[in-house]
Amino acid sequence: MNTEPSGQALTYRDAGVDIDAAESALARSKAAIRATFGPRVLADVGSFGGLFRADGLGEDPVLVATADGVGTKVRIAAATGRFDSVGRDLVNHCVNDALVQGAEPLFFLDYVGVGSMDPVKVAALIGGVAAACKEHGCALLGGETAEMPGVYPPGEFDLVGTLVGVVPRAHLLDGSRVGPGDRLVGLASNGLHTNGYSLARRIVEERLRLRWEDPFPGSDGASCADVLLRVHRCYLESLRPVLKDPGLHALAHITGGGVAGNLPRVLGGHGARVSRAAVPPLPVFTALVDAGKVPHDEAWRAFNMGVGMILVVEAGAEPHICERLREAGEEPFALGEVVAGVAGVAWMD
Amino acid sequence: MNTEPSGQALTYRDAGVDIDAAESALARSKAAIRATFGPRVLADVGSFGGLFRADGLGEDPVLVATADGVGTKVRIAAATGRFDSVGRDLVNHCVNDALVQGAEPLFFLDYVGVGSMDPVKVAALIGGVAAACKEHGCALLGGETAEMPGVYPPGEFDLVGTLVGVVPRAHLLDGSRVGPGDRLVGLASNGLHTNGYSLARRIVEERLRLRWEDPFPGSDGASCADVLLRVHRCYLESLRPVLKDPGLHALAHITGGGVAGNLPRVLGGHGARVSRAAVPPLPVFTALVDAGKVPHDEAWRAFNMGVGMILVVEAGAEPHICERLREAGEEPFALGEVVAGVAGVAWMD
Repeated sequence: MNTEPSGQALTYRDAGVDIDAAESALARSKAAIRATFGPRVLADVGSFGGLFRADGLGEDPVLVATADGVGTKVRIAAATGRFDSVGRDLVNHCVNDALVQGAEPLFFLDYVGVGSMDPVKVAALIGGVAAACKEHGCALLGGETAEMPGVYPPGEFDLVGTLVGVVPRAHLLDGSRVGPGDRLVGLASNGLHTNGYSLARRIVEERLRLRWEDPFPGSDGASCADVLLRVHRCYLESLRPVLKDPGLHALAHITGGGVAGNLPRVLGGHGARVSRAAVPPLPVFTALVDAGKVPHDEAWRAFNMGVGMILVVEAGAEPHICERLREAGEEPFALGEVVAGVAGVAWMD
Repeated sequence: MNTEPSGQALTYRDAGVDIDAAESALARSKAAIRATFGPRVLADVGSFGGLFRADGLGEDPVLVATADGVGTKVRIAAATGRFDSVGRDLVNHCVNDALVQGAEPLFFLDYVGVGSMDPVKVAALIGGVAAACKEHGCALLGGETAEMPGVYPPGEFDLVGTLVGVVPRAHLLDGSRVGPGDRLVGLASNGLHTNGYSLARRIVEERLRLRWEDPFPGSDGASCADVLLRVHRCYLESLRPVLKDPGLHALAHITGGGVAGNLPRVLGGHGARVSRAAVPPLPVFTALVDAGKVPHDEAWRAFNMGVGMILVVEAGAEPHICERLREAGEEPFALGEVVAGVAGVAWMD
């Protein structure tokens, strides 16, 4: 609160903006950001634009660019003071979104909007972003932290990221090779990833009446915060061995809108028959759906329900692609198939 | 407010998230987004990632990437219901940030975070983004709109953008050619651009005690909203004729932190002597500084004070570069020079 008498000199800090605090947050993050730089990065932290050499990106390269946030998962981070994981969620989500078109990540830019600048918290957020970037060989090329009193209530923040990746045009996954008879292969999620949080938080707070530090039902003592802040899985390392396999026709990342909202985006106009019973149930969804009495169809629209990524593969390629996935540590499951004459997703059960 | 009795079935919409409204906002924006697409864009609106062909980007191309928001200028848009201009601010700001390293824009991605989804407002925001992208030959390649109840209070929103541009490495402006004796040439801003808004709003509301529709002092009847929502100037078209001139050594976009916070970022370790009196005064700053009794140095840190872009040019190149700028409709002014033995900016007056 500003208490200076009316008529006295006003400063930027009086108005709720602390430039020094912003600079302190950046200074705390510099080493982690620089650690993500590879040989293509030409400028240091703090330049107006990040610089990335784009020569030699392969035959007829296509840049794949995607922007996203992590939804109201940020509110659990804010409520619990656990700021290190949502940056990883953000990067992993974006890497997956570029991956579904066959792309490897090149670079990432982040944006943190806060009601008031706390350099330690902001540095923790950026530290999570940088750690995930480094893990996936992606440069954290730039970013912005904005102090926005009034836009964000005290303690709240938003976290936004943009990723640019690259894929040779010949290996672009754009749905054009998808056809009836293609098989759907699911890969497990490890929880809500970054979708459905407004509903999930409401169920935890109002129906289960649990605090974030309380044990989550059926989760072997893991707290509600542990379960709901579990980091969005990244499928890059598991899928890399099959990305250029001609039998892989498309990939769908199951985010907001669930299977029915995302799978049709990559089917090139075809539909799909999908078995919900084929998805190995995750305890977190069982507990949330039961406590919230969430209707079955609604749950499958708000949540991924246990399937984080779907591969669309040529029928004959399914065995060897699944074998590759198992070698990478996945337990792929058969979910259904692409069909003609159906719009969107038709549930088999 | 949610009024259903405890124990009844919960839906995503009960929790404040309306997927249909988000889809409606996107549907309203599709034509404007598609109008920004050039021949390099390979995917339609709605794919997981935007696709941009990157072959033939010139000799040894360097991608320049920058992320930013428009600060609390969004609060004036929210308060006045004028949603069409802040998208232009966002794009112009980012184009300028990439431009200072010599880059032409290639593509842009936007993010809109809202407390509750109003498809008409969101489409107006995205429409402004798309219009500015089209004006600067930049594809609006992707974006995300997130409904975040609790993160944003009712009616508030944030608007974030990422721009990727390209410059041949030989024409990269990275400060390495800057040296003592280089001249500083200023180009006028047309107002606050996108910085200093938390301070400016406070002065308008608490010191001038004006409403947004009231005339702003000394502005020929233009309202406070008109003056403070004036769109951030884009310098791309004015600077394009001199971007590859070997006499142009660096550019600084005067954003948060003002001249002293931004000019040193491009001086390659040198300092500068700058005349504040050389900047043609803009009435908006005179009125704000007077009403807020903002100390002189503080005003020059919070605001651009009338200079939106500074060129650092070789002394001998100043006349012909200024001639080019005048041909482009600018009225360049001499601001000072680069000096050895000074850290950052030393004010001459």
